[in-house]
Amino acid sequence: MVKNQKDISKLRKNKKSTVRPLSKGLEKILFKQIKVLDKGFIRVVDYMGNDDSIVQAARVSYGKGTKKKSEDKGLIRYLLRHKHTTPFEMCEIKLHVKLPIFIARQWIRHRTASINEYSARYSILEDEFYIPKKANLSAQNKTNKQGRGDKVDSSFGNKVIRTFKNDADRNYTNYTWMLNDKSSKTYDQDRIGLTRELARINLPLNTYTEWYWKTDLHNFMHFLHLRADYHSQYEIREYGNKLLKVLKSWVPVTYDAFISYKLEGSDLSKEAIQVVRKMISGKKVKFESSKLSKREWNELMDLIS
Amino acid sequence: MVKNQKDISKLRKNKKSTVRPLSKGLEKILFKQIKVLDKGFIRVVDYMGNDDSIVQAARVSYGKGTKKKSEDKGLIRYLLRHKHTTPFEMCEIKLHVKLPIFIARQWIRHRTASINEYSARYSILEDEFYIPKKANLSAQNKTNKQGRGDKVDSSFGNKVIRTFKNDADRNYTNYTWMLNDKSSKTYDQDRIGLTRELARINLPLNTYTEWYWKTDLHNFMHFLHLRADYHSQYEIREYGNKLLKVLKSWVPVTYDAFISYKLEGSDLSKEAIQVVRKMISGKKVKFESSKLSKREWNELMDLIS
Amino acid sequence: MVKNQKDISKLRKNKKSTVRPLSKGLEKILFKQIKVLDKGFIRVVDYMGNDDSIVQAARVSYGKGTKKKSEDKGLIRYLLRHKHTTPFEMCEIKLHVKLPIFIARQWIRHRTASINEYSARYSILEDEFYIPKKANLSAQNKTNKQGRGDKVDSSFGNKVIRTFKNDADRNYTNYTWMLNDKSSKTYDQDRIGLTRELARINLPLNTYTEWYWKTDLHNFMHFLHLRADYHSQYEIREYGNKLLKVLKSWVPVTYDAFISYKLEGSDLSKEAIQVVRKMISGKKVKFESSKLSKREWNELMDLIS
Amino acid sequence: MVKNQKDISKLRKNKKSTVRPLSKGLEKILFKQIKVLDKGFIRVVDYMGNDDSIVQAARVSYGKGTKKKSEDKGLIRYLLRHKHTTPFEMCEIKLHVKLPIFIARQWIRHRTASINEYSARYSILEDEFYIPKKANLSAQNKTNKQGRGDKVDSSFGNKVIRTFKNDADRNYTNYTWMLNDKSSKTYDQDRIGLTRELARINLPLNTYTEWYWKTDLHNFMHFLHLRADYHSQYEIREYGNKLLKVLKSWVPVTYDAFISYKLEGSDLSKEAIQVVRKMISGKKVKFESSKLSKREWNELMDLIS
Repeated sequence: MVKNQKDISKLRKNKKSTVRPLSKGLEKILFKQIKVLDKGFIRVVDYMGNDDSIVQAARVSYGKGTKKKSEDKGLIRYLLRHKHTTPFEMCEIKLHVKLPIFIARQWIRHRTASINEYSARYSILEDEFYIPKKANLSAQNKTNKQGRGDKVDSSFGNKVIRTFKNDADRNYTNYTWMLNDKSSKTYDQDRIGLTRELARINLPLNTYTEWYWKTDLHNFMHFLHLRADYHSQYEIREYGNKLLKVLKSWVPVTYDAFISYKLEGSDLSKEAIQVVRKMISGKKVKFESSKLSKREWNELMDLIS
Repeated sequence: MVKNQKDISKLRKNKKSTVRPLSKGLEKILFKQIKVLDKGFIRVVDYMGNDDSIVQAARVSYGKGTKKKSEDKGLIRYLLRHKHTTPFEMCEIKLHVKLPIFIARQWIRHRTASINEYSARYSILEDEFYIPKKANLSAQNKTNKQGRGDKVDSSFGNKVIRTFKNDADRNYTNYTWMLNDKSSKTYDQDRIGLTRELARINLPLNTYTEWYWKTDLHNFMHFLHLRADYHSQYEIREYGNKLLKVLKSWVPVTYDAFISYKLEGSDLSKEAIQVVRKMISGKKVKFESSKLSKREWNELMDLIS
Repeated sequence: MVKNQKDISKLRKNKKSTVRPLSKGLEKILFKQIKVLDKGFIRVVDYMGNDDSIVQAARVSYGKGTKKKSEDKGLIRYLLRHKHTTPFEMCEIKLHVKLPIFIARQWIRHRTASINEYSARYSILEDEFYIPKKANLSAQNKTNKQGRGDKVDSSFGNKVIRTFKNDADRNYTNYTWMLNDKSSKTYDQDRIGLTRELARINLPLNTYTEWYWKTDLHNFMHFLHLRADYHSQYEIREYGNKLLKVLKSWVPVTYDAFISYKLEGSDLSKEAIQVVRKMISGKKVKFESSKLSKREWNELMDLIS
Repeated sequence: MVKNQKDISKLRKNKKSTVRPLSKGLEKILFKQIKVLDKGFIRVVDYMGNDDSIVQAARVSYGKGTKKKSEDKGLIRYLLRHKHTTPFEMCEIKLHVKLPIFIARQWIRHRTASINEYSARYSILEDEFYIPKKANLSAQNKTNKQGRGDKVDSSFGNKVIRTFKNDADRNYTNYTWMLNDKSSKTYDQDRIGLTRELARINLPLNTYTEWYWKTDLHNFMHFLHLRADYHSQYEIREYGNKLLKVLKSWVPVTYDAFISYKLEGSDLSKEAIQVVRKMISGKKVKFESSKLSKREWNELMDLIS
């Protein structure tokens, strides 16, 4: 694996001539590490296609009759708006990601992707754990069972961080003791170590892992729609936010459409449309007669005011 | 294959005792033929799960603490609204469908499904073709390149239908002549017929085929969202409309949520939300300053008035 | 969630009448807990189809001409042998599984399946960890970087188990301390606890989780092919072995074909076929002239002697 | 769409500088038309990755410790032999294909791929049909219900070809008459034509269509395994054979492994292994005691002699 800045510079110097479509934005950042959280990163390691590839794939449907370049933007927006997803599947991106295991467990729920992960059956995991910053230590949210509420107070926060560190340290020390690998401090040549596939089960969920992850542009946007959203856990959202910038570098026209129609757009139910219609026609609408649940009502009021 | 009413009655009489979850609505129509178009049909031949299965799958996420039955409906609506799709994947439906090949070609674009189709490499196709009713013969739509416009006039309509019939007849007659199968009228024992896999390429796209098609509830709703929609071609929409009723029989609570949030709901872009906000606050908004395309503007005006 | 024997008995008493196809073998074990490892289990909670459903789906391809019951077995074997996988996709199985997180991470790599997992963002995890039995504590395999070798000696084994227990205990104690939930021993009403989605990252990879997992018969067999195989980690193989018995109860004819062609069958490369041919014709073949790698040669010799 | 040699030359002249991995073999043929059948073609229009990308993805699993270049070939062969498919998913290929509709219907059964097809709802289909060469007109195979047997005699062959041509001509003439498009010979300005989505249903299954098709290397090889195989219909096999050469240009090391382990390898059942073992040990084995079906026995005898 690429380990440092020198390796990356070397990779980036190896320029070749291609007749394939190209994304100028991605070529600039290819192989570079984009830092995430305390020890994680994202690196774009390969890609296929650009905004033009989407247009090209869509145009095969319409047959002959070349269109003007100026119409491409409109076509991409039309495709995204009307959920014509296949042209977006014609582009691919491949990332190298370093991330804590509890995030990897959320990430892998997106099934339409290819993954090769560092195997702790083959290899020994590094002594690296995600330790949250104090600013991100929040209490459980009272109303949303799946979210964060107020920040915890400072002294409790300090203790929490110390606990994360101590537990990770001890579990890792015991991990290497069990392995009894030659490289470990406590190596004892008279003792046979435990197999790696078992020793690792002692490590906590904030241990860092690495993987190659590849998906197409349609599924990449779906991932971002869910994971750059405020409902998602802060830690994976940090990856989502960095990947939003990657999307912008890669396919700027598609990125703009994605923001308009997906990330900052909204769905209205049949009942919510009725409420909006009445309001626009100047009528007062009350929650009680809206046929919406309290939660839906609140979401709608947030949206339109 | 099941060929007639007698076979179906026999299948329906074979009742067994099960401890599995059950859908009362589907049990009533299982195996029965639901007619579509002139010679097509749909039969539900198996299923797994019901509204309760969705709730059960979702609740594993929330852990202990049983919920009241009355909250199930709210939970299903919440899941659909927030695109928590996995609980809906826990239900499956399996259909036997008879449909023209040009519809089969649209249908199969839904990739997350399992299909076994009648093979014209193995077997000889029946003499059955979709011939549209005169009432459904429309001109090309002028503004929507992918839709139908006004009805064509009556005498042209008659000629079109005659043409469909004649061409199908002749191509089928030539198909059986090429096959020279013992069952064919023109069978000549001194001649060796052409292999089935080649003879069939002479048949037109309105030839009927049959298949078993199986998918999960999430993908079934996605199919209906696209194919029961007025943008889809009339002929596949006829299948979609019949399947909407199947959905209602199967999972009535999910069906209601699907109508609210998907089939009769709508997406608003970031820009459209701005327009709606202004209108609700009593401001006049003109197309020119809306940042919407003409098409989007028209769609929005249709939606809210 | 179903928590005990009483719940299961209640579920099993609720018998209904269905006209759907039925698997007698699965009906007998539906909902019952099949124990795996120290605290895990598998429960079959729903299914669709049986051996006949596979035949039915395959026969649609062959069109008219009913076949004798006695030919069904031959057909199923033919389908599996020739990788005609779609008829096997027509059957589905849905499981409730309790398993350690490190196994869940291997399991989820099988992407063509639906999952709903217990969420530690919503709910508090139980104090349950996989602690291996001493008999299963092995050293790293010297030749196979991904396997186990000899058993470790007894006193080291005792220490390892004590370490697993102590680390799990302490991490769990700190988890509940961070949460400061009313139910926890150390609950302090003057302190606001940490959000569940963060506290959980302190737990080790041998913590037990639960999920509903649903897949079709084709993918179920693919899972078993990989996970009931001796190359897979002992702990997931234990689940695989129990699921092999579930397969046998469900679709006995398919099970026999699966054993013949997949689980106990083997692939030969072009080069290995050459070696076999020569040997059968009575010639001596040496590794050096075999065009096989050392590893392939050894595997072939194991297979044919 | 690219229509002629001039367009292709222009595309190929547009060379750019990239830091992405490159396949020298594919760069040479990018955009060029590879002819198939009488009027079809394949063009590679984009790709991602090469043999090195597979190695890179696999190595992330093994962690640190760089390996020698010379070991890459062994690793690729190991991965393919042991069905470690994910590293092969890291490469993608995108094709522009022109093919008759009856082949498109077989091709699309491979679901793990992305497709954009020319739409006959939007656009008018060209007057192009697959007409088999006389040398490829065969009778139905007597023993294999899904295959071809002897060639038909010459005068019948001539009649068959004339029939294919005449039926296609007439159906196409009627298609354009129904459309009554300005471009058609029979255009009558006083008549409103039929919508394209209906007129097209009159065309036969040998009408040519076009699509963009994109898949990953793992699924590409699976496609080739089935479609370059002699069991598949001659016409799609012609595409398969051309794509085998594309595979060789793209990833030559993987291609060699694919030939050894997949295309020219074979599966042995548990029972077949027993037969082989006995034969190698010098024993005579008869069909009757082999536990194989007649068909399996014949296949095994073909394989080992």
